[in-house]
Amino acid sequence: MKRDLLGLKGMSAEEIKNILDTAKTMKMVVSQPNKKTQHLQGRTVVNLFYENSTRTRLSFELAAKYMSANAANITASGSSVQKGESLIDTAQTINMMGTDILVMRHSMSGAPGVIAPLISASVINAGDGMNEHPTQALLDMLTMYEKLGSFENFKGLKVAIIGDVYHSRVVRSNIYGLRALGAEVAVAGPATLMPPQIEKMGVAAYTDVREAVRDADIVMGLRIQLERQKKGLFPSVREYHKYFGIDEEKLKLAKPGALLMHPGPVNRGVELSSSVIDGPQSVINEQVKSGVAVRMAVMYLLSRGGFNR
Amino acid sequence: MKRDLLGLKGMSAEEIKNILDTAKTMKMVVSQPNKKTQHLQGRTVVNLFYENSTRTRLSFELAAKYMSANAANITASGSSVQKGESLIDTAQTINMMGTDILVMRHSMSGAPGVIAPLISASVINAGDGMNEHPTQALLDMLTMYEKLGSFENFKGLKVAIIGDVYHSRVVRSNIYGLRALGAEVAVAGPATLMPPQIEKMGVAAYTDVREAVRDADIVMGLRIQLERQKKGLFPSVREYHKYFGIDEEKLKLAKPGALLMHPGPVNRGVELSSSVIDGPQSVINEQVKSGVAVRMAVMYLLSRGGFNR
Amino acid sequence: MKRDLLGLKGMSAEEIKNILDTAKTMKMVVSQPNKKTQHLQGRTVVNLFYENSTRTRLSFELAAKYMSANAANITASGSSVQKGESLIDTAQTINMMGTDILVMRHSMSGAPGVIAPLISASVINAGDGMNEHPTQALLDMLTMYEKLGSFENFKGLKVAIIGDVYHSRVVRSNIYGLRALGAEVAVAGPATLMPPQIEKMGVAAYTDVREAVRDADIVMGLRIQLERQKKGLFPSVREYHKYFGIDEEKLKLAKPGALLMHPGPVNRGVELSSSVIDGPQSVINEQVKSGVAVRMAVMYLLSRGGFNR
Repeated sequence: MKRDLLGLKGMSAEEIKNILDTAKTMKMVVSQPNKKTQHLQGRTVVNLFYENSTRTRLSFELAAKYMSANAANITASGSSVQKGESLIDTAQTINMMGTDILVMRHSMSGAPGVIAPLISASVINAGDGMNEHPTQALLDMLTMYEKLGSFENFKGLKVAIIGDVYHSRVVRSNIYGLRALGAEVAVAGPATLMPPQIEKMGVAAYTDVREAVRDADIVMGLRIQLERQKKGLFPSVREYHKYFGIDEEKLKLAKPGALLMHPGPVNRGVELSSSVIDGPQSVINEQVKSGVAVRMAVMYLLSRGGFNR
Repeated sequence: MKRDLLGLKGMSAEEIKNILDTAKTMKMVVSQPNKKTQHLQGRTVVNLFYENSTRTRLSFELAAKYMSANAANITASGSSVQKGESLIDTAQTINMMGTDILVMRHSMSGAPGVIAPLISASVINAGDGMNEHPTQALLDMLTMYEKLGSFENFKGLKVAIIGDVYHSRVVRSNIYGLRALGAEVAVAGPATLMPPQIEKMGVAAYTDVREAVRDADIVMGLRIQLERQKKGLFPSVREYHKYFGIDEEKLKLAKPGALLMHPGPVNRGVELSSSVIDGPQSVINEQVKSGVAVRMAVMYLLSRGGFNR
Repeated sequence: MKRDLLGLKGMSAEEIKNILDTAKTMKMVVSQPNKKTQHLQGRTVVNLFYENSTRTRLSFELAAKYMSANAANITASGSSVQKGESLIDTAQTINMMGTDILVMRHSMSGAPGVIAPLISASVINAGDGMNEHPTQALLDMLTMYEKLGSFENFKGLKVAIIGDVYHSRVVRSNIYGLRALGAEVAVAGPATLMPPQIEKMGVAAYTDVREAVRDADIVMGLRIQLERQKKGLFPSVREYHKYFGIDEEKLKLAKPGALLMHPGPVNRGVELSSSVIDGPQSVINEQVKSGVAVRMAVMYLLSRGGFNR
């Protein structure tokens, strides 16, 4: 039975810990001059991206290449998608070419979950609409794990996630994953960008950023799509930054040494001030490195049959 | 003397058989976990695509990577084509970079044939205008060959090809290849989409699909460009499907167990009904797998000097 | 201390000679059937191109692959650039993924020089605005070196560079490099496309092409952007060719056997007549091959710490 990574919803703490421990080892590979292992020797990884992305696509591509996989990319523009082929037919076609792992980003929530049972390749969700972005949450957790030193320290960890919670697949995956490890999650953002009944996911929800950030161990900003402003969802970039942007003053409300995170790319001066992005508490660059390691770990474990130890 | 694959026109049965036998072996590679051989170790394959294509480009790219070639892609958008460089100069430039095999798709019939004598790299035609698409026909034939068991069984095989015959490079390559192996080809489609004097290619031509399909061993649908409807070449998608689309009822006219094929991507409910696409006679997915194998075989044989045994 | 290749300005003759001697060896690799060495085994090369380019991107990509690097491409369209991320943040992100060499093309003069001190990867300038394009000049010099036989013969070598000098980063890099090796450079072009005070760079400047070409050992045409015509910078393509295009008659003014060069892609019949492009003095195709070799040499030397012997 092949396994997929569609989301962190329902994933056990043991599985997450196995991924993170494997990723910790993989991270050493990313740091060494010779970034080439035999973990996926001759396996085929295809990145199928229906939404633009530099960082995520490149991260998966390099992760695959570092493990000696055959890696290839398909992006929506220039693909037969434009010829009206159904997503299922596209996926089945890619599958038949010897693909072992299909990495998929799609604007439709649930798209990877529709595809996964229909093909023999393992499907990795690289972001589906407003649903999940599991490898992003895993790389966030790996970055925390390396600072915390042990999984024990996730218990009671206070994580504040700030911004456009409503549209964020990153926040959803983080809530599932962090809660599985015993962390406490608080979210905050403009009332227009908060999902109704978000508390039912087991998180504390605030419209005042200060309340969410107070005494947090981790402060995570979420990317805001500037296009949403036009739809009246927030008043202006300046006002957004004033009330919801994380700057030095707001960051001081968190615990001393609290980590500042962001999935990137950051709109400087909007979600985060430049001073905190480039400040000592920022681990934003480290997150990027964790991303390659986590994707290596996920692909390797999938090629071995799954996430159980 | 280097060899090219510009089309199946004029290719001998022996050469085709050699490609198909080689491809049969290559297909095992596509099925195994470690899809990496040394057949093209250090050779360079460049895909130069002036028309969009996911499946064909990906198929060639993976075929090259499976054999350890250096593989790179150029697509028309983003290329120096936009800077007004001539096709010949572009091809010569790519050639000088150490390219051994240039895979080329172009909207102009005959373009690969213009380029081939001017460069040292072997040229593979991946579709040129309304002329030929030889690897597509070869993968169709490989899929048939695997079901038929021997080349002997191509003799008298009845192949019905249905749809936009006029614009199809797939049909032309199939006619050349299948007739070389001794098969009989019948074509059918709307009168507006049938080339005049197609019978001169040695095929039977019908405007009634039923007549072409009756007692066929193979029923192949051709992709219809929906844009052509605007030009008045066929009345409506619904009417097209009613008269020319292959559904369960029309497929029953063929021999029991006749194979259903399509080069993909399919417009579901237009050229083929979903019931036959997903039905037991469909080998459409198998064709995709055959495609990688055929391209491996063609590239390998070209790197060895040609298609003769 | 990591090294970068931002330009040839300030580079010593010894460094240039080391690159060219290394490239001469690398060129043998480009010519052999098995184009695969271990020089960059497991190193990571990312091409970040904010301007369209087939030849330069492909040349770097193949150079990296020929040396067994992990190679990946990012082009502006389809990148997070469109999401408004700053160039610096993009570069830092790519850097954190294990990148050893970042090859960068940007429309802004000086962009690679801004990035280089901020990241651990070596930066190679693949063309920045109107500033420099060092690997192009190095490949021009390698092509000359192979014909000249020794570095001694660069002393007093007369190089005439013709065309849109004002906008050309190629000419600037060539002036720095050629003068370091002891050559004499003359430039010529329409008065509207000549930078004021170009003589301060140590070159002779003419508005009459004939004067520049007379007795030259090397005649190099520069690409003209046809869009510039609309801005009134030159009268018409036909007139441009008449006065500034290099044809057989003008080429005869140079020394017998003078080499004809062009960075490509050529607008045939504009900068150069087809007769000289395809004539016996043209080394335009050889330049392309030199390009791959020079890029291999530069990347290899950077991975070893720099250009000193």
